[in-house]
Amino acid sequence: MAPGNSVSGPSRQLVFSGCRELYRPSAMDATEFRNFGKAAVDYIADYLENLRDRPVLPSVEPGYLQELIPKVAPQEPEKWQDVLADMERVIMPGVTHWHSPHFHAYYPTANSYPGIVGEMLSAGIGCIGFSWITSPACTELEVAMMDWLGKLIQLPQEFLNCSDGPGGGVIQGSASESTLVGLLAAKQRTVRRVQVLHPEWDEATIKGKLVAYSSDQSNSSIEKAGLLGSMPMRLLPTDDKCRLRGTTLEQAIKSDQEKGLIPCYVVATLGTTGTCAFDCLEELGPICNKEDVWLHVDAAYAGSAFICPEFRHLMAGVNYADSYTFNPHKWMLVNFDCSAMWLKDSQYLVDAFSVDRIYLKHRHQDRAPDYRHWQIPLGRRFRSIKLWMVLRLYGVEGLQQHIRRQVGLAKEFETLLRGDSRFEIVTETSMGLVCFRLKGPDTLTKKLHDRLMARKNIYIIAATFKDKHILRFAVCSRMTESRDIQFAWEEIRGQAEQILLGNDADDDILVHNCKTYSRLKYNMIRNDCPSNGLKINGTANGQA
Amino acid sequence: MAPGNSVSGPSRQLVFSGCRELYRPSAMDATEFRNFGKAAVDYIADYLENLRDRPVLPSVEPGYLQELIPKVAPQEPEKWQDVLADMERVIMPGVTHWHSPHFHAYYPTANSYPGIVGEMLSAGIGCIGFSWITSPACTELEVAMMDWLGKLIQLPQEFLNCSDGPGGGVIQGSASESTLVGLLAAKQRTVRRVQVLHPEWDEATIKGKLVAYSSDQSNSSIEKAGLLGSMPMRLLPTDDKCRLRGTTLEQAIKSDQEKGLIPCYVVATLGTTGTCAFDCLEELGPICNKEDVWLHVDAAYAGSAFICPEFRHLMAGVNYADSYTFNPHKWMLVNFDCSAMWLKDSQYLVDAFSVDRIYLKHRHQDRAPDYRHWQIPLGRRFRSIKLWMVLRLYGVEGLQQHIRRQVGLAKEFETLLRGDSRFEIVTETSMGLVCFRLKGPDTLTKKLHDRLMARKNIYIIAATFKDKHILRFAVCSRMTESRDIQFAWEEIRGQAEQILLGNDADDDILVHNCKTYSRLKYNMIRNDCPSNGLKINGTANGQA
Repeated sequence: MAPGNSVSGPSRQLVFSGCRELYRPSAMDATEFRNFGKAAVDYIADYLENLRDRPVLPSVEPGYLQELIPKVAPQEPEKWQDVLADMERVIMPGVTHWHSPHFHAYYPTANSYPGIVGEMLSAGIGCIGFSWITSPACTELEVAMMDWLGKLIQLPQEFLNCSDGPGGGVIQGSASESTLVGLLAAKQRTVRRVQVLHPEWDEATIKGKLVAYSSDQSNSSIEKAGLLGSMPMRLLPTDDKCRLRGTTLEQAIKSDQEKGLIPCYVVATLGTTGTCAFDCLEELGPICNKEDVWLHVDAAYAGSAFICPEFRHLMAGVNYADSYTFNPHKWMLVNFDCSAMWLKDSQYLVDAFSVDRIYLKHRHQDRAPDYRHWQIPLGRRFRSIKLWMVLRLYGVEGLQQHIRRQVGLAKEFETLLRGDSRFEIVTETSMGLVCFRLKGPDTLTKKLHDRLMARKNIYIIAATFKDKHILRFAVCSRMTESRDIQFAWEEIRGQAEQILLGNDADDDILVHNCKTYSRLKYNMIRNDCPSNGLKINGTANGQA
Repeated sequence: MAPGNSVSGPSRQLVFSGCRELYRPSAMDATEFRNFGKAAVDYIADYLENLRDRPVLPSVEPGYLQELIPKVAPQEPEKWQDVLADMERVIMPGVTHWHSPHFHAYYPTANSYPGIVGEMLSAGIGCIGFSWITSPACTELEVAMMDWLGKLIQLPQEFLNCSDGPGGGVIQGSASESTLVGLLAAKQRTVRRVQVLHPEWDEATIKGKLVAYSSDQSNSSIEKAGLLGSMPMRLLPTDDKCRLRGTTLEQAIKSDQEKGLIPCYVVATLGTTGTCAFDCLEELGPICNKEDVWLHVDAAYAGSAFICPEFRHLMAGVNYADSYTFNPHKWMLVNFDCSAMWLKDSQYLVDAFSVDRIYLKHRHQDRAPDYRHWQIPLGRRFRSIKLWMVLRLYGVEGLQQHIRRQVGLAKEFETLLRGDSRFEIVTETSMGLVCFRLKGPDTLTKKLHDRLMARKNIYIIAATFKDKHILRFAVCSRMTESRDIQFAWEEIRGQAEQILLGNDADDDILVHNCKTYSRLKYNMIRNDCPSNGLKINGTANGQA
């Protein structure tokens, strides 16, 4: 390409005027972006403000989208107006609306206006802050925000970046990643320790003996971290309140030690996924410290509540932990991904991860945390901007208000359930989560869930508690209000009534289209229909 | 909280009018968001359009940001206007401008207007698509986009989602993650195979024997994947063109087999980080296939070029690969993060990762890929939207034009270098990368780099090639034009001239502020100054 043939920037018309080979502008310019971006802002605001009007669950069958778009990418650029219009035509029919006031499944995932603008600004700057020099602001704002956040939940001083010790905080992509990172640091520390005790063992021998522990109520990502990190993860039984107790851990550790194995890593959960139970940190902590086992605390969901003093007693024992995680991207209004992780001693992590090549060196590297050694990927987005936006634009009081409000709405739902003797609440209502079932055999609760899922007016999911089928009702959306709690209750109560009255005739709406889905190939296709008791007659429910 | 005390949504004035406990709106509402969001769009457009006017490198010292913001989060919400203004006051002084036309370090990271709007829309919807039901559109658009992309680079059919086999594509967060995911799948496949051959060995024994291979030119993330995945990663020597050759791999495999070890995983690089060299896939492939070793191909940067037919010969041999990765977030204008990964057989991955709990179940799970089993985290953002935006709003032709234009600009820089006999080009110019040095001892090139870094007019980084200090000049920003190449050349040539003329007197500008940085504590603080030959006199360069 000859000098002068530049094609970007606002001046391209000038540059190209008179060029022999005429330039056809294929890229969006800044003026178009201003229009497109502002239209997208309006689209997002309209979408979120009117979410209550959309069914929370989509009515599409697998493969729906492939019918709506071409099989190959377009040769020529399209108009942004057409692409934006396709958000409604192609995407929205297949969206499960996580921010609908009627979404009560899993746990909340955060979405807020300040969080969205944070994402925008982060994308606009588009730096990859894997070391200090690759954008000092990216590292330093993260250092500062992790301290703001750590102070807000009154984490012990030694976890903070501003402390004198080797501790500090970092933003990870997810709690899964935090758990895995904790495991790898734990492995590093234990191998080092055991090498001193047993110089005759090589590293592979030691690693082959390491064991990790969590409870049978911990998130599936904990088990996955064990798989990924090649460390057996024992899922220990919990007490009648779904809590992991000290004696259970103590016995498991002892039993493994007797087999010649080396306990290395414990993941305690504050707010389990199933029932939002809190492991007994004050029992587990001293055992871990005594046995030199790394204690990681996963407070992914419930951790946000600790910004309110009245919930902070639930994190008692955090002083025993070696690492601590909670996800502002769950319940603290910071858009996914933003998993906050603190370590008391980051050196084990840095040792486990450090791989230095000359092209990563820069002159400040000894004076700032190179966060690439604190995480699995090399690249990292400027995620602290959204944390900064949310903390400043809500303020501590606004965030506390959000937590308290959602806890209040869960209490409201609990009160409605308690007023109907056909239902039972199976665990204490905890934070924004209520676990319940229909009294009687599991089939009733299963039927109720199937009906709710087929009707798509609210989205709740099932779990097991003491071998019983239960339903989890979580207050998720920041837009959920009292009227939505009433709406959900009416939906649940009404469907339960139909089932209890034996009105199974209209279960035709629950039909499940099980014809082999052959247009698209998925690696897990099976031609059989999951035998979940639903009637089968080949058509999807009425909304399809 | 009493029913009726809802605080969100557009109707809150109504809801609260007359309430005894007056609600102080703490959260940003939709109207404010429209204003804030649109102001942010303008800010981003202004920032990107005027990037040429900012120094590409910041002039701050570690800790600069902590002086500019409070030590704790604010209690009350602030105004969005103040927060947006702080982007200039607090953030911008510490930003390394990756999209400046004068950024020639590392490799490009993508940033485009369609990509930014893709990020916005993804944040607005804010779904967590870890399984089909959690947003069918999220899974299905990804399935479709990975096919669009795979077809665009003419990847063998068996890698595509639309093929009949167990292959398919997925978006990972980074090439680091793709490499690790490939390693874990390879481990799974090898353990299964060896268990059949040696039923007397337990899994830990087999895992302890596994070995991986890559070249000494591969990205640091490859070595890190070995560390994370507990598999020794042999960094094999390359030929005089920095390519890993078949005979080298063959010998390494044989040598390990003789020691009783089990070769498991090979990472071949198309476009190395140092010099953009291409490993000899056609030699490595047959060896891997014969030895049943998983071949992963990392084309993180250069892979985007394969959308142009004229570069596709460089991926010959990809048919031997088990997995293949390139990063549209590097050179294909899709904002970070978007690392495209394809596998010929995804089942090993799914087996390695599957951990199913009842709360993740849904009725469609046998008929769509549950991408959570294809990646390390559980949660995942709707990343395919930005790929969709970029492919449609640039069109294939627009993207090809972008690649060809940047390759042309690299050629232009090469021509300038070739016209000056004081410089030597050390490796063949490859894609958008030119590697060069000043003829003579390494100290000259090092001095040149130090001066360029201190002056901050352009950003280039150093590397080693055959034990010699070299400089890497990469065409990175989509906004780089011919005039920027001329500018960079003038800067490099001018500084080289000063050094060669022995004008070291003005090296005072290179001073390095080495006073102990004690306001902030970092875990890697050392009080000494890196001994890099720079003069020290206690003040930072003139721009500080």
